[in-house]
Amino acid sequence: MDGKIALIEAGGTKFIVGVGDSSRQIRARTRIDTTRPEETIPAAIDWLRAHGDDYAAVGIASFGPLDLDPASPDWGHVTRTAKPHWSGADIAGPFARAFGCPIAIDTDVNGAALAEWLWGAGAGTNSTLYLTVGTGIGGGAVLGGHVIRGLSHPEMGHISMPRHPDDAGFTGSCPFHGDCLEGLAAGPAIAARWGASLSDLAPDHPAHRIIAWYLAQAIRSFQAILQPARIILGGGVMQTPGLLDQVRIAARDAGGGYFPGEVSEIVTPPGLGGDAGLLGALALALGRERTIG
Amino acid sequence: MDGKIALIEAGGTKFIVGVGDSSRQIRARTRIDTTRPEETIPAAIDWLRAHGDDYAAVGIASFGPLDLDPASPDWGHVTRTAKPHWSGADIAGPFARAFGCPIAIDTDVNGAALAEWLWGAGAGTNSTLYLTVGTGIGGGAVLGGHVIRGLSHPEMGHISMPRHPDDAGFTGSCPFHGDCLEGLAAGPAIAARWGASLSDLAPDHPAHRIIAWYLAQAIRSFQAILQPARIILGGGVMQTPGLLDQVRIAARDAGGGYFPGEVSEIVTPPGLGGDAGLLGALALALGRERTIG
Repeated sequence: MDGKIALIEAGGTKFIVGVGDSSRQIRARTRIDTTRPEETIPAAIDWLRAHGDDYAAVGIASFGPLDLDPASPDWGHVTRTAKPHWSGADIAGPFARAFGCPIAIDTDVNGAALAEWLWGAGAGTNSTLYLTVGTGIGGGAVLGGHVIRGLSHPEMGHISMPRHPDDAGFTGSCPFHGDCLEGLAAGPAIAARWGASLSDLAPDHPAHRIIAWYLAQAIRSFQAILQPARIILGGGVMQTPGLLDQVRIAARDAGGGYFPGEVSEIVTPPGLGGDAGLLGALALALGRERTIG
Repeated sequence: MDGKIALIEAGGTKFIVGVGDSSRQIRARTRIDTTRPEETIPAAIDWLRAHGDDYAAVGIASFGPLDLDPASPDWGHVTRTAKPHWSGADIAGPFARAFGCPIAIDTDVNGAALAEWLWGAGAGTNSTLYLTVGTGIGGGAVLGGHVIRGLSHPEMGHISMPRHPDDAGFTGSCPFHGDCLEGLAAGPAIAARWGASLSDLAPDHPAHRIIAWYLAQAIRSFQAILQPARIILGGGVMQTPGLLDQVRIAARDAGGGYFPGEVSEIVTPPGLGGDAGLLGALALALGRERTIG
């Protein structure tokens, strides 16, 4: 695909909007606060228009949940979300109407998984899972060149979880499931128990050990169901110094030697750094999902 | 594919061997006890030879774990298993040498998932997961016409699990993970706690409620990761009267209304009945994995 590609990384606190091309150059980018759909989306469109209106495609990697059923009248809309103003918001439609070119939209984590598999930490493997651990927890996976989907996109933060013995009193912060992975290990669950982010707690605070253990238990479930060659851990919580190493050690213990592969190779940080979100949108726009290599 | 197809459902206690064809007829079948590889496999070959040696293909749906890496010298072998005599056993090789025709081999549950998606309870969907709950617990899934795989085939019995509050004392029976799904809810784990199979315990025995709850928690994890349109529950434990209905009720509770679809449509018994194993082998032999429809 030649020409300019409009890129949108639609997040719960900010939209990152950029202009890219098929050579993976990000020519320009900006940040727009996520306020209300009727403010944020037109601001993104205005910025893109200021960089030309001859886009060959639009790629959107968005927070969710999203309706991604091509047969649905609500394709490209957010479904129901706890985020005020955004339940039912049409994300894809305004960009389609503004630029009259093909639109690709998927979840931010599906985009990141695809980009990491194509160009990042998952390159050369047959299977890559990307998990973000931040304000929420979400995941996407690419198997054999395909982003996996069933009735809808994955919601990997909502898997069932065992309870760490030193964390028995906490009910969990997920409004749907209480103590699912997100309810136990995302940023708000950390703050609810310990009054701070993980990186603000002393390195010997038990929270580090407990969160690492939860992520390791989740990794075991991902391995048991998908056996990914790479499980890439991104997001704000994973910026905590030392956490990745603790997760690797705990994941080796949790696996009990049962799964093939070396945990230290499988569990890995993102390879694309801060551009993973926009590159996810680019990978989606380039339609690289079913193209191997 | 015209002609006869040799079918092997290789289980831990019995091999079911049959002759089929592309019209899904099973022309003949037999049962051979699983003893040692050097007895059981030649017995299967002898029986197949007695029905002719002009096979167009061989399909094998086997217990595992299996090495399914086409580049591995141990392709088609069992890897390590707790089952005496079978660690390292070459399953595919003897059939390949005996019949000199193409061989397809995969796990029994991958075969069952493929057959159920093609011809059974998953027909017409984009995503089907098959879980067997018996002496062990294993699962396979077909997404968009593809059996999913990563570094190896899934080992769905080994996901991490929460603990039912009325089951706190049991350490779990999995030699690798203790209280993974298989360690809590497979037949031996039921017998270890309650001294009987679930179907031999009175309908008001708490074991029914506890096992249904564990399967529901597992279903939530399968939904969160794969969002299957069908989650098919087979295996001996699922023959327990009333269990499927209890699982459905518990799965609706566990999901908290978060996932799309109706639990009573998603969670379902097998559609292929007693032939699922041989039809799994047939689906593998017909190379139907990537063929939609």
